[in-house]
Amino acid sequence: MKGTRGLWFFILAVCASFAMTPPFAFAQGGNASLESTSQDPNQWAMPLGNYSGNRHSKLNQINTGNVSKLQVAWTMSTGTLRGQEGQPLVVGDMLYFESSYPNYVYAVDLNHIEKIAWKFAPDIDKLAPSVACCDVVNRGVAYANGKILVTTLDTKVYALDAKTGKVLWTAVNGDPKLGQTTTDAPLIVKDKVIVGISGGEYGVRGYLTAYDLNTGKQVWRAYSVGSDADILVDPAKTIDGATQQPVGANSSLKTWQGDDWKLGGGTTWGWYSYDPQLNLIYYGSGNPGTWNPDQRPGDNKWSTTIFARNADTGVAAWAYQMTPHDAWDYDGINEMVLEDSQIGGSTVPTLAHFDRNGYSYLLDRRSGKLLNASKFDPSVNWANSVDLKTGRPNVDPAKMTKSDVNVKNICPAAMGAKNMQPMSYDPRTKLIYAGTNHICMDYQAFSVKYKSGFPYVGAIVNMFPADNGDVRGRVIAFDATTGQTKWANNDTFQAYSGPLTTDGNIVFYGTLDGWFRALDESNGKLLYQFKAPSGIIGNPITYMHGGKQYVAVLTGVGGWAAIGLAEGLTKGTEGLGAVGLTRSLADYTNLGGTLVVFTLP
Amino acid sequence: MKGTRGLWFFILAVCASFAMTPPFAFAQGGNASLESTSQDPNQWAMPLGNYSGNRHSKLNQINTGNVSKLQVAWTMSTGTLRGQEGQPLVVGDMLYFESSYPNYVYAVDLNHIEKIAWKFAPDIDKLAPSVACCDVVNRGVAYANGKILVTTLDTKVYALDAKTGKVLWTAVNGDPKLGQTTTDAPLIVKDKVIVGISGGEYGVRGYLTAYDLNTGKQVWRAYSVGSDADILVDPAKTIDGATQQPVGANSSLKTWQGDDWKLGGGTTWGWYSYDPQLNLIYYGSGNPGTWNPDQRPGDNKWSTTIFARNADTGVAAWAYQMTPHDAWDYDGINEMVLEDSQIGGSTVPTLAHFDRNGYSYLLDRRSGKLLNASKFDPSVNWANSVDLKTGRPNVDPAKMTKSDVNVKNICPAAMGAKNMQPMSYDPRTKLIYAGTNHICMDYQAFSVKYKSGFPYVGAIVNMFPADNGDVRGRVIAFDATTGQTKWANNDTFQAYSGPLTTDGNIVFYGTLDGWFRALDESNGKLLYQFKAPSGIIGNPITYMHGGKQYVAVLTGVGGWAAIGLAEGLTKGTEGLGAVGLTRSLADYTNLGGTLVVFTLP
Repeated sequence: MKGTRGLWFFILAVCASFAMTPPFAFAQGGNASLESTSQDPNQWAMPLGNYSGNRHSKLNQINTGNVSKLQVAWTMSTGTLRGQEGQPLVVGDMLYFESSYPNYVYAVDLNHIEKIAWKFAPDIDKLAPSVACCDVVNRGVAYANGKILVTTLDTKVYALDAKTGKVLWTAVNGDPKLGQTTTDAPLIVKDKVIVGISGGEYGVRGYLTAYDLNTGKQVWRAYSVGSDADILVDPAKTIDGATQQPVGANSSLKTWQGDDWKLGGGTTWGWYSYDPQLNLIYYGSGNPGTWNPDQRPGDNKWSTTIFARNADTGVAAWAYQMTPHDAWDYDGINEMVLEDSQIGGSTVPTLAHFDRNGYSYLLDRRSGKLLNASKFDPSVNWANSVDLKTGRPNVDPAKMTKSDVNVKNICPAAMGAKNMQPMSYDPRTKLIYAGTNHICMDYQAFSVKYKSGFPYVGAIVNMFPADNGDVRGRVIAFDATTGQTKWANNDTFQAYSGPLTTDGNIVFYGTLDGWFRALDESNGKLLYQFKAPSGIIGNPITYMHGGKQYVAVLTGVGGWAAIGLAEGLTKGTEGLGAVGLTRSLADYTNLGGTLVVFTLP
Repeated sequence: MKGTRGLWFFILAVCASFAMTPPFAFAQGGNASLESTSQDPNQWAMPLGNYSGNRHSKLNQINTGNVSKLQVAWTMSTGTLRGQEGQPLVVGDMLYFESSYPNYVYAVDLNHIEKIAWKFAPDIDKLAPSVACCDVVNRGVAYANGKILVTTLDTKVYALDAKTGKVLWTAVNGDPKLGQTTTDAPLIVKDKVIVGISGGEYGVRGYLTAYDLNTGKQVWRAYSVGSDADILVDPAKTIDGATQQPVGANSSLKTWQGDDWKLGGGTTWGWYSYDPQLNLIYYGSGNPGTWNPDQRPGDNKWSTTIFARNADTGVAAWAYQMTPHDAWDYDGINEMVLEDSQIGGSTVPTLAHFDRNGYSYLLDRRSGKLLNASKFDPSVNWANSVDLKTGRPNVDPAKMTKSDVNVKNICPAAMGAKNMQPMSYDPRTKLIYAGTNHICMDYQAFSVKYKSGFPYVGAIVNMFPADNGDVRGRVIAFDATTGQTKWANNDTFQAYSGPLTTDGNIVFYGTLDGWFRALDESNGKLLYQFKAPSGIIGNPITYMHGGKQYVAVLTGVGGWAAIGLAEGLTKGTEGLGAVGLTRSLADYTNLGGTLVVFTLP
């Protein structure tokens, strides 16, 4: 990446003029047709449903009164066996989805489900699967202006003609030889395609990149750690969410020892939200590299950080670090839900984020100011609270990990009290509905040397259910403004599928052992379930076609949650410590990717 | 195999004493509990449903009046992507099935479909897939006496404890290094496990083998071609079905030039039926090796032959060769349906067989006497008729293949007017319901030299739809005693799934492009269809559980029919000439194995 440094200084100089626009200014933004399409409940035009990332649908033809009659309308194999972590899009009469590696992309005309309208099979670097930490998943395609935008495991970005599947342009966003991979779904904002990068366990220094929607040319790239030029901050204007002060010069570099930042992590493999009024893109950065905290003293900014960046320039309006000096792999990439909240009698534009570290964060999305931080899983013990004044967690010293010490029973485990499974926010109930993990770990850090393209982890981890029980997941209805849990349903395995809520008062989600479920949104009561071909780590969506409401989900177990099953691993500490957690999952389900579409008779 | 020749002379000597029993004698036979279990319509205890191989069920809860309301009850991935050519068994509350390579075997307790009761993952020779001619399929497990009997692609036979999946014994039936593989489902007769061998395109000389159900020790082995000792015939007593005379000495050897018989084919990879009264096992032998007829002058007996063998000794009661000197790869392995027929006012115990060569054969199953031979596909042109007196086809000389000549438009193609997809016989209507192929070929033979473990084909074949149309398959209702077709439904692709008929007056089957269908048995009218995850080359079965009727089918496209899709081949002449035939199939379906179970709401 060093060869592009000069170019970046140039781009930053260009960006500086844009950055003169106050980051809080209200500017008209978004991809106008995409934004309106995503507001049409008959379609599902964005990975998270809309720019707010709320995964809520106004459809109500399927509702609590009839969902028990739900049945499978049609199905389609993805053509791959490994974990399916994404969701289809529905735009007009067309349904699109992407499989796990080797990243097949399919288009189906909903008027002709007997056929595959087109299939795109990318020419993919065979090295990529060997440097993917946590199964060879993909989280879906994006749509804009007649194009389908695709990321592939080998870090390529493709724009396809949505009608034909023909490649319009290709960009190369990284290099698997350096341990870089891509699993995230792009976000389209105006004429830009926003994509992230994976590889936090390979010493990859994360970045978010914007490509031109029409040409595929890189417009801006913002690293999570490094120089001010690299991370696209304005030292005088970019706000530190925790202190509500400008971040100042070298805000990242000064929190690292020597050149540690070059392997500093902060990858960007989660979901991205966007506020068209503020023209800000929201996303989280991942864990710092390595997992051995003693090897990288300091806060390791801006790893495990929520960023708000100007969509046009990439310059950060603000940054809020959740887990300074992350010593637990509390990778902060989980999605942001943008909704207004009632705070002290006022309506505040907020952002809700359930972090891997087990805290729900409610921030003023204009400034990054912390409004609430609450445990959303009762097992959380690494920090007793998050100080609303300093914005920093009150870490329990007994749970601080150290080189060559096996620190026991830290909750949550590295996989997080929630991982990437995106949550839903229902604007009617003002509650969040989330699939969560109820898991803890023992964590022994050790010294590790970097070698390009090889794992750079530095910890032996062993995960297990919280309370040593048989509950590894919980689906919860949660108030992010108060930190109160309205209801919680226990699952045997991690609830690793992103819930969908609808105006039919239903929560749809899937379980790791293969149940597709509909819950009563008001109390979590099970109304319907179907045993899918495989475990579910995908995220249901809903759409209307021909006057009927459909619910579609990708089934296909895998991901980090089921890495033992996906990769045939058997030792508990393999798969970054996750194998022992779901050893019994093989007694319940098999690998195999299938799109399953439901409707009423 | 030469090392075992001495042993075989010994075994033949032992057998000779059994052979003293007249082959037509009526002896009590069968695996008594298995036979009664297979007669219970609530279960499906044998691959073809019962010893008669009729794939008919007396269940009628699902019927023409309500089948349109059918819905998917539950599903389960097979954990493999390639073609699923078999079917589940249901014995008591347990459902068992086997996937394509690597041949996973699953048991599911129908009271606990949320779980896999047990899974068996064999340690399998990785060479096997590379010598499998026609995808890495498997046609299912067998059950008897608390054991599940399993064949794997690398020719191993396993007896598993049906309750636990624990291996009770293992037998090795061949050697992939010699091009030998196994794809067939075993048949259990009394205390014997009957298994065949594949590899007709690798110069394999076929044999049927009986293993002791309790110990796995080999009891008898009957080659299809070779010496009288090898082929287990009694020259004075074994009847040639065509002539109704004893076969005489060296009935096979004298129909081959020199040592050609050693590479003589006649593999045994189809289905097996059994008549407990006659104590005879019925099955067909495959094509002679090579596909170049000029390299092997003579009738090449007993390739492409229906055998009736004594279950205890393996000695042949009779043998009827359908395609002497097969010059078209009209492999004769298709299944035999055993039913009584009204012939000239008398009730005759008959056997019906739809051969690859496009003729339906009705034989007296006591003697192998030919009673009727009729074209079941209108395109058949390689022979104008089969002479009922001589039992031999009247071959059209223009369709006789020759070395270095491209003989055009031969019907059916080598894949056959029907391949292994097993047919159904409804004792009520006395009709056969078959999925058939409507395909032709150009065929150019050439000289080929044998090399152990390498293809020994000797022909370039190119298949295409009959009449150069867009119909490649037909589902037909057919009277084997008269040769009359009652109705025929056209399909775009080969109808490569074995129909199931029921007392609900329904024909269930699946299409290569993924439709699972229910037809009105009386007229072929489509009553219900469901778009399955993948194309269907498996065979639906039915059972009762908890007072409800279920229909189960393995979906997962592949096999020879879809070899291009299965193996990623693109040239029309690849895949033994079959690739061009279904090139457009990729526009309709994807690889991926799933068990789909249907029931009424």
